[in-house]
Amino acid sequence: MQDRKLISKAVINRLPRYYRYLGLLKDQGVEHISSGDFSRMMKVTASQIRQDLNHFGGFGQQGYGYNVDKLYEEIGKILGLDRVYHTIVIGAGRIGQAIGSYEGFSNRGFRMEALFDRDPAKHGDEVGSGIKIYPLSYLKEYLKTHKVDIAAVAIPSEAANAVVPILVEGGVEAIWNFAHTDFDVPDNVIVQSVHLSESLMQLSYKIVHH
Amino acid sequence: MQDRKLISKAVINRLPRYYRYLGLLKDQGVEHISSGDFSRMMKVTASQIRQDLNHFGGFGQQGYGYNVDKLYEEIGKILGLDRVYHTIVIGAGRIGQAIGSYEGFSNRGFRMEALFDRDPAKHGDEVGSGIKIYPLSYLKEYLKTHKVDIAAVAIPSEAANAVVPILVEGGVEAIWNFAHTDFDVPDNVIVQSVHLSESLMQLSYKIVHH
Repeated sequence: MQDRKLISKAVINRLPRYYRYLGLLKDQGVEHISSGDFSRMMKVTASQIRQDLNHFGGFGQQGYGYNVDKLYEEIGKILGLDRVYHTIVIGAGRIGQAIGSYEGFSNRGFRMEALFDRDPAKHGDEVGSGIKIYPLSYLKEYLKTHKVDIAAVAIPSEAANAVVPILVEGGVEAIWNFAHTDFDVPDNVIVQSVHLSESLMQLSYKIVHH
Repeated sequence: MQDRKLISKAVINRLPRYYRYLGLLKDQGVEHISSGDFSRMMKVTASQIRQDLNHFGGFGQQGYGYNVDKLYEEIGKILGLDRVYHTIVIGAGRIGQAIGSYEGFSNRGFRMEALFDRDPAKHGDEVGSGIKIYPLSYLKEYLKTHKVDIAAVAIPSEAANAVVPILVEGGVEAIWNFAHTDFDVPDNVIVQSVHLSESLMQLSYKIVHH
């Protein structure tokens, strides 16, 4: 198997989509899928799929196609979905509450454990299946007594830039960033950003240039 | 200038970030920025920036750096931000309401004009600066009497797959997709997806493999 450090971002970015389609097939009770059918379903060439999966040791059998269950499980492992991530959400606005209450995340191991917000009116409220909203001022203390793997940050840029050092100091391993900014964090802290405005600008670019 | 069809997706994806940083500089009253300072701010090499901008005819002057206002405006034009997009939102859940009420989008020309939802309890409600929530059953009629450029789709996959043909039939040019699915649309309809679960899986991949 190749050194995983060398696997391109493009391949990594395609894995969750493979995983999603394999999940659908699994739900439909499909046990095997031919490389051709999988390719048509994914709208990706069969050779692209083969190449992508070969980075991880390959999974298909010549003339047999893919074993859906096995491939689903293996890609899940590669994506790190075979463990639990203690997850908190900074910001109990609409986006923060949407993240905190979405059961699809918990089902994949991203266990939402607390939300934090500045607004006293929200403190003590619960979202989803009983996830509490705490005062933002309690965050530092919370991190001393709870292991947190991922913090979703769903507050405006300026506030986010003030909170990130507290998260880093508190040992949070990764930040899922919804704020309109990039963070200055130590190399060992992972930042994955969802920039909605940038996505919308990519859309308008396509409208103007297609 | 190069044929814009040939410009790589990676370059396009970087433009909104250039635009964001130039907007920050503009807000701070900065009129010119040297190629070196811009590179350090963006954490992208100066030669990468030069290459990216050269796709669009280049904007810098040797030994002078970049004119912030001009570059901001030009990148805005390339991204299609010099016009108005009539935008609607399908789904008035947390994500739908977050999109519909975010003023940053309207300020960039993405004019939020209506939300649609199945839930009668929400009909007639308003989000943001008076954007009404209509019954989903009214969508078809609405599209007959209103030009819609972009429809943000923020409802579960199955419901989304049922709504998309109505949007396409109604002449919507582009779909901003938040559902957990890919759509089968004619080639002339643009789909830009924000798959939050996939973003989270890319994050867990990084945690496991870094």
